[in-house]
Amino acid sequence: MDKCFANGSAAPGPVPKGHIRLFSMRFCPYAQRARLVLHAKGIKHEIINIHLKDKPDWFLEKNPLGLVPTLETEAGEVLYESPITCDYLDEVYPQNKLLPQSPFEKAQQKMMLEHYNKVVPHFYKVVMAKENDDKAALVAELKEKLVKLNEKLGTKKSVFFGGNSITMIDYMMWPWFERLEAYGVIDLLNSTPELKHWYDCMSKDPSVIACSHSTDSHKAFFKSVFTDGKPNYDYGL
Amino acid sequence: MDKCFANGSAAPGPVPKGHIRLFSMRFCPYAQRARLVLHAKGIKHEIINIHLKDKPDWFLEKNPLGLVPTLETEAGEVLYESPITCDYLDEVYPQNKLLPQSPFEKAQQKMMLEHYNKVVPHFYKVVMAKENDDKAALVAELKEKLVKLNEKLGTKKSVFFGGNSITMIDYMMWPWFERLEAYGVIDLLNSTPELKHWYDCMSKDPSVIACSHSTDSHKAFFKSVFTDGKPNYDYGL
Repeated sequence: MDKCFANGSAAPGPVPKGHIRLFSMRFCPYAQRARLVLHAKGIKHEIINIHLKDKPDWFLEKNPLGLVPTLETEAGEVLYESPITCDYLDEVYPQNKLLPQSPFEKAQQKMMLEHYNKVVPHFYKVVMAKENDDKAALVAELKEKLVKLNEKLGTKKSVFFGGNSITMIDYMMWPWFERLEAYGVIDLLNSTPELKHWYDCMSKDPSVIACSHSTDSHKAFFKSVFTDGKPNYDYGL
Repeated sequence: MDKCFANGSAAPGPVPKGHIRLFSMRFCPYAQRARLVLHAKGIKHEIINIHLKDKPDWFLEKNPLGLVPTLETEAGEVLYESPITCDYLDEVYPQNKLLPQSPFEKAQQKMMLEHYNKVVPHFYKVVMAKENDDKAALVAELKEKLVKLNEKLGTKKSVFFGGNSITMIDYMMWPWFERLEAYGVIDLLNSTPELKHWYDCMSKDPSVIACSHSTDSHKAFFKSVFTDGKPNYDYGL
């Protein structure tokens, strides 16, 4: 099931009994959020990877927006937008709760995610920088954002963003950090000691490890996208 | 307490016992979302209006982002971002639940809100159109979005977006519809019969009425912002 489904491919059958289905793309950081949550909670699931440049009609019938991650339940319910899919999984599957029970702490994670959503474009600006762009300036902007995240983590006096164990917000933030070395800016963590410690601890989490790609794989995928202009969704298979 | 607090004004005391405090601005549609939820749920609250062009230091100390709506609890907890404040209120105050209990229906409201977030800028484009802008084109774009909303409502076969009674998503969407006449585009609803019916039913809701301003007031406020360049936050007081 790993290789991606392009248009013309046979549609998958019904969602297997006792499972939930994730439409994904192996290198998509947003879909990775849902994969992390599925793994961390031990939810039985099936993954269908989608060729994002040539989406199957049967996928667009399920989700006309054609986004990954998209979840499909046994009842045929369809959900998308990564935080919505992750919150849904955490609510429906009670084991290993990732969101805090306290409404205020939950709200704090949502506010932190809103903040982080404004950081994410800066990772892309760096990795998508063209030859004529002032890459040093883009890296400096990203650094400024990471320093701010480091301060936030510092004031919390905890290892992770929601306390001393991993919670939802950490998994929501992780995918772009996994790619820092492939973006060529891992050294930025030298200026952000608390964030570096978080990064090191996250790197050892079993779900992070299970859902990761190596830096070489990320680099090869970026090359296929940004240099060759032909995303290799099946790289490494 | 209605008139806005500018910098230099005395800070309000502690949040009154048994109340929650909302930092607001009388004409802000995002803050209106929180006012609607507070009213619909019958939550005891105090409103402090903020001069958004000259924010008090004591407000920026509570929320360095300086956003309205901001909630402050008796315990001194501070929350912002309108959907986050509204979800928090619905979770902490159990009476008159506005979000569905079903995780999937809740996720549907969140997906609908994501969709609506992309519609909101089109209202502003119309009301902020400069003389040289092709206003007819901007109105046509808004119309296209409203027709899409109308279709979504039509497929639901219900009066409101979450069923046959008002739920959270309706209050999240309402503030920009209240201003349709002041934007000068109320006629667009003639092309969207289901949305027109929703608009008419919403207009009769006691919380919508209690939290509303007249079209004349909205127009006067817009004039103060867009023509005079000096927002009159206290208009009508």
